[in-house]
Amino acid sequence: MKPPSPTQLRDLGEDALIRRLARGLPAGHGVVAGIGDDCAVVRPVGRGKFEFLKTDCVVEGVHFHPSARRADVGWKAMARVVSDFAAMGARPRHALVTLCIPPDRPLEELDGLYVGIRRAALRLGFGVVGGELSRSTGPLVVSVAMTGEARRWVGRDGGRPGDLLFVTGRLGGSGSGRHLKFQPRVEEGFWLAGRTGVRAMMDLSDGLGSDLPRMARAARCGYVVNAGEIPRHRGVTIPQAISEGEDYELLVAMDPERAAPLMRAWLRRFPRLRLTAIGHLARPGGVWLGARGVAPGWDHFARDP
Amino acid sequence: MKPPSPTQLRDLGEDALIRRLARGLPAGHGVVAGIGDDCAVVRPVGRGKFEFLKTDCVVEGVHFHPSARRADVGWKAMARVVSDFAAMGARPRHALVTLCIPPDRPLEELDGLYVGIRRAALRLGFGVVGGELSRSTGPLVVSVAMTGEARRWVGRDGGRPGDLLFVTGRLGGSGSGRHLKFQPRVEEGFWLAGRTGVRAMMDLSDGLGSDLPRMARAARCGYVVNAGEIPRHRGVTIPQAISEGEDYELLVAMDPERAAPLMRAWLRRFPRLRLTAIGHLARPGGVWLGARGVAPGWDHFARDP
Repeated sequence: MKPPSPTQLRDLGEDALIRRLARGLPAGHGVVAGIGDDCAVVRPVGRGKFEFLKTDCVVEGVHFHPSARRADVGWKAMARVVSDFAAMGARPRHALVTLCIPPDRPLEELDGLYVGIRRAALRLGFGVVGGELSRSTGPLVVSVAMTGEARRWVGRDGGRPGDLLFVTGRLGGSGSGRHLKFQPRVEEGFWLAGRTGVRAMMDLSDGLGSDLPRMARAARCGYVVNAGEIPRHRGVTIPQAISEGEDYELLVAMDPERAAPLMRAWLRRFPRLRLTAIGHLARPGGVWLGARGVAPGWDHFARDP
Repeated sequence: MKPPSPTQLRDLGEDALIRRLARGLPAGHGVVAGIGDDCAVVRPVGRGKFEFLKTDCVVEGVHFHPSARRADVGWKAMARVVSDFAAMGARPRHALVTLCIPPDRPLEELDGLYVGIRRAALRLGFGVVGGELSRSTGPLVVSVAMTGEARRWVGRDGGRPGDLLFVTGRLGGSGSGRHLKFQPRVEEGFWLAGRTGVRAMMDLSDGLGSDLPRMARAARCGYVVNAGEIPRHRGVTIPQAISEGEDYELLVAMDPERAAPLMRAWLRRFPRLRLTAIGHLARPGGVWLGARGVAPGWDHFARDP
């Protein structure tokens, strides 16, 4: 008789679990020692390049509903970090995944997460070189750390009064499921960071209403937004497009004198993704023209209104 | 009237919290952009060096008691990762800290954690370049990712049958509080990795009874341990020294022909820390001479006996 196949995490040991999860995961470039040793060992990024470091996490009940497909949760956990690299013009390189998970969860939950993690690694172009499994008494937590690389990059603080503000794609309505399946704008961010005239970038994770004030504050200036110009997904109101968050589109501040040729080049390079002017940076203070009932974006620790 | 000072996480916004926590944190070497942008940007490690990547986490109720001093918890979260670098002979470089924390926790809890994180950064020699704060409905989780560097390193898989096995310090009794305050063996690991004849290293986090079989398996060999030789803390039995875990001492496999001069050099370099021979690697199979009632070390997902 064959032994029954294991169905819960505690039926497999930690080492067997790690071997199971590592199957089929790409390790990426320059890896000298990967999963299985105390640390991963990699060759550093090439001369003249910068290294990027970022960590983020998704928590069950906060960043995803307990009933969400686990492959989508795995994708989201990785894609959020890749979006932060995209926001500076960097490409992802190596990832480490830490899971905190109750031991009575079914094995298929972990397998599902890794379907999404593997898909993200293959499509977004990074390797998974390590991680950690811990049991927990609370919600499932997927914590991701990644390294990235770029020769040129753009921070969020380079804007100046008068710079035009653009967003990629359309905003709002992420709660309907898009927040689990979004495409981080890696190639777009990389391309933008290489263009003269792009002065500041960030990704819209907490919503334009929270993130634009951050970009303005970092540059010690204010902003004027023509709310009617904000590109929205179908059925999304202006306040929703400003406040919901989890858009993972890019917010870009551009030298107005460079904006016209940049837009033409964008249209040639990315004909299927819109890049829309929504306003400009200004003297300190924020103005939302044509927006009523705008609430600020997401704050993890703010009191409920 | 002055407003009352904030006492809970939700009384401060996320951005204000981050500014508060970043105060007094060393950023480390080669940092181009630190806390406050979408990612940290650093200069890569120098030519001829390798980069090391590691992530780990501590979970309330699993890795520390809910009543543990938060400064100790912060220290432990960072020191565990540094210990993994030490296990390969690497030094830590930059750290990212992700906290999942219920929003009704008092601010002083977070402040306490950062007292420990700051102390670890200053004493163990790394910078903190970023992190993430998320609310959670479950236990406090501190997830840490770190980069490290070394010119020479030693993995866990280089041992050969006949190699002598050594451990640093003394084992057992970590549950009495040492697991929160241990010193990762960074300088010792760095020194050992630079010596000819050191063939394999790892740190004892899950206990000699779990970790030695891992080192042996990685080298496709077995081991013989003279359990009576295992250096123990006062009041610790042999089975406890083998199985309790969280020692964070180094386990080292050494070419027997190099062992004598290496031991003499060790005594000159580290006169106050013992390095004790406890057995040797052998043909496949594990033997614990003189140990009765030995249980395997810690496994996060094993069923309770």
